Amino acid sequence: MALRMSSLFVRTQKEDPVGAEVASHKLLHRAGYIRRSAPGIYTWLPLGLQVLGKIEAIVREEMARAGSQEVHFPGLLPADPYRKSGRWEAFGPDLFHLQDRKDNDYILAPTHEEVFTLLVKDLYSSYKDLPLSIYQVQTKYRDEARPRAGLLRGREFIMKDAYSFDIDDAGLDASYEAMRVAYLRAFARLGLPCLPVRATPGAMGGSGTEEFIYPSEVGEDTFVRSPGGYAANVEAVTSIVPDAIEYSLSPAARVEDTPDTPTIETLVDAANANHPREDRAWTAADTLKNVVCAITHPDGTREIIVIGLPGDREVDLDRAAGTGMLGNGEVGLEAATAEDLAAHPELVKGYIGPGLSPETQLLGLEGSSKVRFLLDPRVVDGTRWITGANEPGRHVFDLVAGRDFTSDGTIEAAQVVLGDPAPDGSGPLELARGVEIGQIFKLGRKYAESLDLKVLDQNGKATTVTMGSYGLGVTRVMACIAEEYHSETGLLWPQHLAPADVHIIAAGKGEEIAEAAETLTSELESEGVTVLLDDRGKVSPGFKFADAELIGIPTVIVVGRGLADGVVEVRNRLTDEKQDQPVAEVVASTVAAVRTAYATADGAADAAIADAAGGAAGGEVAAVADTSAL
Amino acid sequence: MALRMSSLFVRTQKEDPVGAEVASHKLLHRAGYIRRSAPGIYTWLPLGLQVLGKIEAIVREEMARAGSQEVHFPGLLPADPYRKSGRWEAFGPDLFHLQDRKDNDYILAPTHEEVFTLLVKDLYSSYKDLPLSIYQVQTKYRDEARPRAGLLRGREFIMKDAYSFDIDDAGLDASYEAMRVAYLRAFARLGLPCLPVRATPGAMGGSGTEEFIYPSEVGEDTFVRSPGGYAANVEAVTSIVPDAIEYSLSPAARVEDTPDTPTIETLVDAANANHPREDRAWTAADTLKNVVCAITHPDGTREIIVIGLPGDREVDLDRAAGTGMLGNGEVGLEAATAEDLAAHPELVKGYIGPGLSPETQLLGLEGSSKVRFLLDPRVVDGTRWITGANEPGRHVFDLVAGRDFTSDGTIEAAQVVLGDPAPDGSGPLELARGVEIGQIFKLGRKYAESLDLKVLDQNGKATTVTMGSYGLGVTRVMACIAEEYHSETGLLWPQHLAPADVHIIAAGKGEEIAEAAETLTSELESEGVTVLLDDRGKVSPGFKFADAELIGIPTVIVVGRGLADGVVEVRNRLTDEKQDQPVAEVVASTVAAVRTAYATADGAADAAIADAAGGAAGGEVAAVADTSAL
Repeated sequence: MALRMSSLFVRTQKEDPVGAEVASHKLLHRAGYIRRSAPGIYTWLPLGLQVLGKIEAIVREEMARAGSQEVHFPGLLPADPYRKSGRWEAFGPDLFHLQDRKDNDYILAPTHEEVFTLLVKDLYSSYKDLPLSIYQVQTKYRDEARPRAGLLRGREFIMKDAYSFDIDDAGLDASYEAMRVAYLRAFARLGLPCLPVRATPGAMGGSGTEEFIYPSEVGEDTFVRSPGGYAANVEAVTSIVPDAIEYSLSPAARVEDTPDTPTIETLVDAANANHPREDRAWTAADTLKNVVCAITHPDGTREIIVIGLPGDREVDLDRAAGTGMLGNGEVGLEAATAEDLAAHPELVKGYIGPGLSPETQLLGLEGSSKVRFLLDPRVVDGTRWITGANEPGRHVFDLVAGRDFTSDGTIEAAQVVLGDPAPDGSGPLELARGVEIGQIFKLGRKYAESLDLKVLDQNGKATTVTMGSYGLGVTRVMACIAEEYHSETGLLWPQHLAPADVHIIAAGKGEEIAEAAETLTSELESEGVTVLLDDRGKVSPGFKFADAELIGIPTVIVVGRGLADGVVEVRNRLTDEKQDQPVAEVVASTVAAVRTAYATADGAADAAIADAAGGAAGGEVAAVADTSAL
Repeated sequence: MALRMSSLFVRTQKEDPVGAEVASHKLLHRAGYIRRSAPGIYTWLPLGLQVLGKIEAIVREEMARAGSQEVHFPGLLPADPYRKSGRWEAFGPDLFHLQDRKDNDYILAPTHEEVFTLLVKDLYSSYKDLPLSIYQVQTKYRDEARPRAGLLRGREFIMKDAYSFDIDDAGLDASYEAMRVAYLRAFARLGLPCLPVRATPGAMGGSGTEEFIYPSEVGEDTFVRSPGGYAANVEAVTSIVPDAIEYSLSPAARVEDTPDTPTIETLVDAANANHPREDRAWTAADTLKNVVCAITHPDGTREIIVIGLPGDREVDLDRAAGTGMLGNGEVGLEAATAEDLAAHPELVKGYIGPGLSPETQLLGLEGSSKVRFLLDPRVVDGTRWITGANEPGRHVFDLVAGRDFTSDGTIEAAQVVLGDPAPDGSGPLELARGVEIGQIFKLGRKYAESLDLKVLDQNGKATTVTMGSYGLGVTRVMACIAEEYHSETGLLWPQHLAPADVHIIAAGKGEEIAEAAETLTSELESEGVTVLLDDRGKVSPGFKFADAELIGIPTVIVVGRGLADGVVEVRNRLTDEKQDQPVAEVVASTVAAVRTAYATADGAADAAIADAAGGAAGGEVAAVADTSAL
């Protein structure tokens, strides 16, 4: 049955929602697709549900194609499995939690690894049962501190989450690859440009992981890519480590007075003026900046660490925390507070350094200070540094790594910047912003171990299962499609994702016009083409056109004055073409055009996979060709 | 793609779930459709989702046919609208509630009247926008004290809830009737016998309401029906009030000693022995039993009331509370506690009565006792009673209603029993049990008033909208279908609701058998018939047959030894027929049978409406013909 503007539960809005900054948020609201219910929580109106249904159908088809079976878990889950996995604590305030009438703890599921694991444990017992891939399309809840941008970051949202279960690593690799292909296919069919980027597992645990990024300025995620096809989020970028330097000829380390040098810049100037280097001028890259940070461990204890990095680099604590190099992917990392510093008077603010070696080394040696000292990987043996002398107004010069000081380990805590080399040698990195629309994980055995999921292997021995986890943000994807496909005047959906295939406008008052629009509608619908008919009697053509532009169905048929000459106007807003067509021909041509659009979108998946296979030779993760031109 | 037992995520179970009492709970668990996650909270496995999807599709089709548009609200809702409507309190401990990270109160929606009201208020402003009917298929949450019977009473469940918005009562009547028809059609298509019964609004408020009851011994609801077609739940039954009796010739009331009469029976025996009535023997129906009860009002205050009713009747406090005759549909009503009684020493346990009139009347007269005294409607003026004298061991005889005592009102607090007359004169009532699978309400203006939903009427005057609310328990319906359609050995779905259209069993080890089963599967699927193929290589035919019986697809094709003779066995488990069919013919005959089954189910809706229209002449609510024979 056609949707009819005369009765459709929609009222387009002239005003953007309060505080809206991105196009998808503004337009989905103004065109009457969604309506805010609470911060980050939305109600779906009929037009919105139509598009959402089409997106979900494509995702389901690709899951089925990848051999994944649909199940459906509750949204309200007992807290206990999340306590066992450690995520009750790890999710922190992002977790909505509550108690039932018997005071049992429950959560609103933010993601479902634990209960999927338990279900498989419940039903399966043998290696013969594996591999298994199961998924759901489900409402998730995360109490985001800053829900933003409409559907881009909500507190109640729809996710497709899949989980794979394998007996061994080779099986996990195959399951992961099948799901990776399904994601590439799904995003291609959804018309969404998408870049799989290397990522780090973060709180999820596990080994390999990739994020699928929709490149867009409205995104919150920064990622890097090189001309040669390397792509990663900044947490996953690894620095190229230079070779160690022969240091036998380096000058001896010494402490110098450096008054009035509160910044790296003033320090470098003073160094060049008063303590010049023999071979070239000192630069900021020759200073070793030591930053005091604090880690909060899962058990609540707070640890002070010092991170040393070249002075020409800014610290990126999110990157440092995301690398997992702190030894525990779930710890909190932040700058040290005044209180933290007060507890460590040996760390003299502005003048922190390893200390003049070896007798006075303060950091990085057993028995010196109790704080861990972690270094940027570029601080290799033989590098010469100007750094703090642990006394106000004084710095050490020519402190040589490996000769004069060592560390407790390395950490990637320096901000990645434009022009940094890609770790695989594929050229200088550029930084871009994007929206994470999916992430796939080789979880490995973390959840299976904490929840004791074992099956008997071929020798009858109980073996821990290895798992993968694969998330795709369905409602977020819809927002991204709206970001990618809109015009100055409204949404502009890809033909196969529009809330109806055709928008018919009865433009004018004549009875003949209304009747012709009705006839056209029923003829198209009898061919399986869905129609949104603007049959409102007392609304002017101008208002109808404006609503049509806002709602964004790309194919618009205007039944108006031309009818007297036996023609209607067919507009393709994606190509910006308008043409008059004889009424007698318009059904056939529209049916053909709509069917072609669906077929083309389906075919895009094959092209995307072919592209990805080309780039992925040698096991490398490559960018998929931009599919926006589909 | 066919479902394959070799890879399907299902493991049939030999054991019933712990504590399971009803067939649907046992069989949906054992056949691998659902799996318990927490009390009253279930996970859906692939087979379960298939059936659920078919049920939801039928419900959606009937909603669309009734002109209702689909929307989707959040499950997590701000508490404020529920405070304004009074339901934050009214739902009591059944409401799951929580706070977000900013300490704002939220609820998990038990039903959505408030937010639907607010959304319409948000978007609509004129009578021209109405009527409107919108619905959703959504997860609901109720923290039931006693979740039971699997999907029959859960804490997380799926409901279809629709809401209508009209400018006037005539519009509401039409909207209500359209939804009533949609329900009758939907249940008929679902093959579920269903009886619309008169009900009382309870906590929902509003005027007219009917429940749709699936008659079944496993149900928690008691309802009544008469040979003439009257049907109601016990709360909605009204007693036939006898005419008042001329009492000028009745003997004067007097107090008599009645030692050793702890029960109605001993009292009647003593009365007949020592104080015989002049015209006939006393019976239990001549005694007036006065029961002390306590009401907890919404503001928390506790009120003691006394309910008087004939001694041959039991008290049914649920019925009394459900009638709304206490003046507030949302108050709690329970038997008085020892503490309550201690606060009222004038109420002498076992000997409570209005008192000997008029000087000593204890109850029911201003200034006597402070407790309200409510009477069964059958206690009309002129009736003569034996009742307590408010002294231990003594009763009043010949206390005449209207002459010697009055009351503060009437209440239907007596248990309805077999043989009670239907209020419409349609014959004696029989009692039956059933499951409430839907309820429709004329809400009226309760929610629109509390949330201020007004539109401008034809005269430009702000007018409060009148609403209807229409719930249908989707997951509960699935349980009822399983109750209605099963055998000794397993589920036995109506053909059009089965998780697949055909269950093909490769019974035997030959390569030819496996290949023939595969060929048959792909031929059927190419005709649009869905298949569950038991392709397990190492499972015996006996196990496969047992699993097929448990899973309950009615059409089973066994590819086995007959193949050598060019035949397969086709079983119709609904009719218990088995026959060998030539392989060359089985695809065509199966396709035809399956298509007929779908068409028959769709046609059942028209028959149900025709039946209902016949019985509903004169505005009466009639039972739909039992559709289980479809």
